[in-house]
Amino acid sequence: MSSTFDGNLKISIFGQSHSGGIGVVVDGLPAGEKIDMDALAAFLARRAPGQNAWSTPRKEADLPEFLGGLVDDTTCGSPLAALIRNTNARSGDYENLRDVPRPGHADYTAQIKYRGHQDVAGGGHFSGRLTAPLCVAGGICLQILRRRGIEIGAHLSRIGTVADAPFDPVNLTAAALRAPGAKPFPVLDDAAGERMRAEIQSARAELDSVGGEIECAAIGVPAGLGDPMFDGMENRVARIAFAIPAVKGVEFGAGFGVSSMRGSVNNDPYYMDGGRVQTRTNHAGGILGGITSGMPLIFRTAIKPTPSIARVQQSVSLSRKANAELEIRGRHDPCIAPRAVPCVESALAIALTDALLERNEI
Amino acid sequence: MSSTFDGNLKISIFGQSHSGGIGVVVDGLPAGEKIDMDALAAFLARRAPGQNAWSTPRKEADLPEFLGGLVDDTTCGSPLAALIRNTNARSGDYENLRDVPRPGHADYTAQIKYRGHQDVAGGGHFSGRLTAPLCVAGGICLQILRRRGIEIGAHLSRIGTVADAPFDPVNLTAAALRAPGAKPFPVLDDAAGERMRAEIQSARAELDSVGGEIECAAIGVPAGLGDPMFDGMENRVARIAFAIPAVKGVEFGAGFGVSSMRGSVNNDPYYMDGGRVQTRTNHAGGILGGITSGMPLIFRTAIKPTPSIARVQQSVSLSRKANAELEIRGRHDPCIAPRAVPCVESALAIALTDALLERNEI
Amino acid sequence: MSSTFDGNLKISIFGQSHSGGIGVVVDGLPAGEKIDMDALAAFLARRAPGQNAWSTPRKEADLPEFLGGLVDDTTCGSPLAALIRNTNARSGDYENLRDVPRPGHADYTAQIKYRGHQDVAGGGHFSGRLTAPLCVAGGICLQILRRRGIEIGAHLSRIGTVADAPFDPVNLTAAALRAPGAKPFPVLDDAAGERMRAEIQSARAELDSVGGEIECAAIGVPAGLGDPMFDGMENRVARIAFAIPAVKGVEFGAGFGVSSMRGSVNNDPYYMDGGRVQTRTNHAGGILGGITSGMPLIFRTAIKPTPSIARVQQSVSLSRKANAELEIRGRHDPCIAPRAVPCVESALAIALTDALLERNEI
Amino acid sequence: MSSTFDGNLKISIFGQSHSGGIGVVVDGLPAGEKIDMDALAAFLARRAPGQNAWSTPRKEADLPEFLGGLVDDTTCGSPLAALIRNTNARSGDYENLRDVPRPGHADYTAQIKYRGHQDVAGGGHFSGRLTAPLCVAGGICLQILRRRGIEIGAHLSRIGTVADAPFDPVNLTAAALRAPGAKPFPVLDDAAGERMRAEIQSARAELDSVGGEIECAAIGVPAGLGDPMFDGMENRVARIAFAIPAVKGVEFGAGFGVSSMRGSVNNDPYYMDGGRVQTRTNHAGGILGGITSGMPLIFRTAIKPTPSIARVQQSVSLSRKANAELEIRGRHDPCIAPRAVPCVESALAIALTDALLERNEI
Repeated sequence: MSSTFDGNLKISIFGQSHSGGIGVVVDGLPAGEKIDMDALAAFLARRAPGQNAWSTPRKEADLPEFLGGLVDDTTCGSPLAALIRNTNARSGDYENLRDVPRPGHADYTAQIKYRGHQDVAGGGHFSGRLTAPLCVAGGICLQILRRRGIEIGAHLSRIGTVADAPFDPVNLTAAALRAPGAKPFPVLDDAAGERMRAEIQSARAELDSVGGEIECAAIGVPAGLGDPMFDGMENRVARIAFAIPAVKGVEFGAGFGVSSMRGSVNNDPYYMDGGRVQTRTNHAGGILGGITSGMPLIFRTAIKPTPSIARVQQSVSLSRKANAELEIRGRHDPCIAPRAVPCVESALAIALTDALLERNEI
Repeated sequence: MSSTFDGNLKISIFGQSHSGGIGVVVDGLPAGEKIDMDALAAFLARRAPGQNAWSTPRKEADLPEFLGGLVDDTTCGSPLAALIRNTNARSGDYENLRDVPRPGHADYTAQIKYRGHQDVAGGGHFSGRLTAPLCVAGGICLQILRRRGIEIGAHLSRIGTVADAPFDPVNLTAAALRAPGAKPFPVLDDAAGERMRAEIQSARAELDSVGGEIECAAIGVPAGLGDPMFDGMENRVARIAFAIPAVKGVEFGAGFGVSSMRGSVNNDPYYMDGGRVQTRTNHAGGILGGITSGMPLIFRTAIKPTPSIARVQQSVSLSRKANAELEIRGRHDPCIAPRAVPCVESALAIALTDALLERNEI
Repeated sequence: MSSTFDGNLKISIFGQSHSGGIGVVVDGLPAGEKIDMDALAAFLARRAPGQNAWSTPRKEADLPEFLGGLVDDTTCGSPLAALIRNTNARSGDYENLRDVPRPGHADYTAQIKYRGHQDVAGGGHFSGRLTAPLCVAGGICLQILRRRGIEIGAHLSRIGTVADAPFDPVNLTAAALRAPGAKPFPVLDDAAGERMRAEIQSARAELDSVGGEIECAAIGVPAGLGDPMFDGMENRVARIAFAIPAVKGVEFGAGFGVSSMRGSVNNDPYYMDGGRVQTRTNHAGGILGGITSGMPLIFRTAIKPTPSIARVQQSVSLSRKANAELEIRGRHDPCIAPRAVPCVESALAIALTDALLERNEI
Repeated sequence: MSSTFDGNLKISIFGQSHSGGIGVVVDGLPAGEKIDMDALAAFLARRAPGQNAWSTPRKEADLPEFLGGLVDDTTCGSPLAALIRNTNARSGDYENLRDVPRPGHADYTAQIKYRGHQDVAGGGHFSGRLTAPLCVAGGICLQILRRRGIEIGAHLSRIGTVADAPFDPVNLTAAALRAPGAKPFPVLDDAAGERMRAEIQSARAELDSVGGEIECAAIGVPAGLGDPMFDGMENRVARIAFAIPAVKGVEFGAGFGVSSMRGSVNNDPYYMDGGRVQTRTNHAGGILGGITSGMPLIFRTAIKPTPSIARVQQSVSLSRKANAELEIRGRHDPCIAPRAVPCVESALAIALTDALLERNEI
């Protein structure tokens, strides 16, 4: 288990922050899908570091080399394999983390699980950098879905104390879904976006970081995808969304809001709209009984604040079995959420492509 | 896919609300585990209907017959198979739902997915009744875990506008975990429980229903369980928790609260406690990088209000392609959350047993 | 793992020879498939014991009760669950086998794996009786496939020293495939069948047993099913065929014969037959690169002689750590192969249904 | 599905014969395993082309670059990823195969499955070259197993009409297992090896190819590995062995020989050997009820003759829907079996490592 998703698509993500490279193998994509490499590069650029004031200044090209699965940029049926080289030299800066784990990171838990053999350099396999191959897989799925009338988009619905306007859960358009991704800062309400950026700068100035929330949605999803119980669309999306390192919560439709709602409000009334069954509200987030209803599929993920902060933090020395202080050097994003937006879109794109590959009609 | 969980444990849940029976096959449990049948019955009774004022008056024994997997109530290594007979006669009351789907239910999505062949009687395979076999599997896992020092408990952390006190996320004891399950109404703060019950009665009086939230935790979990990316403990728990029909959100530790937190607050500082590595706070909910830290594992699930309410609701006639009104007869729980508490405990118990079965040490 | 098949179909087999019952859960069948219960009963009767001179006199009805998955004998999309009750009383005859394992049986290996907790009565979960639920799943798949123009049949290609005529690997008809299953003794050449029966009677008379070989084929299989490498049709069929307890070998097309063949002979030349691509020979058994070619899919399985024989055998006492003699009482089939024929058909039917459920075309 | 093995180990093989590279991701290996890179290179050299008179003269280094999963040549717990570059330029020689499929190859079946989008150059993903990454995974598993006292070896048991001496199925030593792999031509009986080479040369001289058979065995396998039914050791080994392109049959122990045996002969009598349970014969091939017995695990695979032969062959033009002649240029092994020996060892090594990773003892 671990870095392999074994649905109808099989996705295997490999590499560490400072190893020879990182990459992904995607087995099960339909043959004959032309990949628009420029569109893929533009999508990947949305999660790349070093682009602007609110992300880390490290700049990497992060463009994948396709080792297999394509002929003339078109899927040929064999597994798609992509490699992104790591260009950072392996530094000795990280060896201390084997002894003094960073709070909020996987240093300690990896130390226990792998009995000291884990790769600590740059966070190893636990680095946020490993979301780049996830976005390679997701970016390709997005293109495949768009060709079938399914559009996906996401935006920063919250940074710290500032909330963005929500997606319209009922009348959601492709234009509305695409809008935030086309902006340097992916929000719906630019005024809110300004305040979010101020909050991020404030956190940075205080040698601190801040969390956020991402709302993601899809339209054009056919009714009837997903299954009851363990393989409902909620289960599938959540299973992939939690693969993004900083995600601590996933909710669909009204989400945790349902806990204080009455059934008469939460139930989405059906009506006929020119021969199509629609609901007047969409508290279900487009999923009932694990199965899509044809209404927009909507979910939100909670993104924790970057654990790497410049302040001195309390930790322990595992070798000395004693308390220890830790000061993390290097430059880090004061907020991961903006760069996580395409990752969340990727999670949904993978889940939907996987579900579409499943037919019970033989 | 669908009603089969295919981890190290393989769990296959079958049956419909009005079919010959419902049940579960659990493949992969260790041999030699004695099942305490009385404890199992007591656990199952916590989700059974008809026990008190806030649940539906239908009363069923719901005790499983074990068809395989046991010798003298002890697991023998072969798949454990349990059957619970359905004692309700099949009624014709439900046929109308094939045409006029209930808002908030899976009637419409099942109709699309199964092209009209779904079993509509009593909600078919989508009935909350299917959580009984989940609890059979979970109740057995709970016993297996307890034998290894892992204790699990859950309580109603919210009903409507009323919140319960939370579990202590750092100093959580077995006694605290067991306490709510031993009460007729599973809360920590009985005064809050009184107000919750009033809220449920109020909803019932208004021919309505109300949602809730369940907090669940485990202690004694060894550090090092779970994996990075797709098979982190968050992914695993979420995948099973979303199998409970009414769950619309899952969050771990500080959960969605992280979106408005600073890293300096959210990071849980390490300290040495008599040779053991502990954290002073537990915003991570006991999971970092997908791997357990040894701190209490804590998560919350959002439970939507019962969709079956007595009020007239707006729906459509699929055959006539026209709007239609719907009035649901029969008696239904005005709040599912109390009976969902052992289901959530089961989800965590299954996820932890599954993770414990996985060793990389060969 | 173990008794759960986790392909596109999920099949979970449960029960022991003397437990409350045996059965199967099949998750993932298409909805809307009408099951012909009489045809299913006739199919199951072909593997049932006690029907004739060459099988054990124990007679059981072995008709399944469907606990879920059907409405009016038609699949409804939820998991199909079938139960066959065990009517034999639990006897104490088997307790000795926990100490003195039967040669050729799983007694010893189960003792080690389950550390003495295994169910020894009647062979427990290792009993050939567990092929009854496999045949329930297979018999239903056979009906689903036939509706789509795929016909499957099998015959005894060898018993001891006597070989049957082979299927025509190129011009194979539905009539030829159905013929052996319609006979009391499933062979193509009845004269060979007579000699086989004599060989079985001779083994019985000598308090011994004898092995056999089964050839199985399918026609109407569309080209393009299966995948390269781990999920080729050979891999899939073999994985299920080896689930039949006595199978010790599986070969496709020319099978082991290829080892002494030249490429110029083994290569099946293509030709055009009225717009369809055909091959003049079929040494490939209808599979190239793991993918079906549209030619008949043909394979053979080796069935070992019944390990339970009436002669005194050499074994050990595990408790005394000493050699011991063993005399097995009860009546047993002197040859399992005739009753294994529908089991092998079931293996192929399951593999093909599973492969048909997989589409990469979305 | 397809090129991903999803057991306890997850193995994903990627690349085509003429793509940027071929490789493998292995997820789930234990951390802390030192890889002996020289031993791995020596193992891989056994399947590399161009080494001697009986294989194709194309010579490639085929040494893998490890992109992830290692720190100082030691497994670190994250997925092991290896890349082997393809150094052959992409030639236009193969385009004709899209229209006129080679008999005995996957050209036609891939054409159907991938609707003309398959990579035809060099056989694409169906090339025998894809067994190199399988051997990378297998060679590492072999080292991990040897460290735990499990030794694996294989030899050419047959080429054409010439048979090698068999492994001693009962008293098999590590020295005997290692001997054939240390020779340039992997047989037990060198005189038989001479005749085999003559047979291969004869086939080459006749512009033809010849098939073979490989016997593979493991000693030191603990009793108790594997499961009943779908995940028996036979099923697991067969599933991986059939991933080797030319394999058309797999048999265990006495294999197809059981069909003509009596139970009194086939049953392996137990005896006590200084406190250890042993069998006097080993017709079971070390597996009973799907579970290892502790006796040597033995199986054989049938390897078909190389389909690429220099003779003119009969085929069809798919575009013209007419018969066509085909003459394959280039140089090809007249017998693949010698180079397949380490592939078969790899299949067993992967299956055993996978099974060892599974414990039910929690």
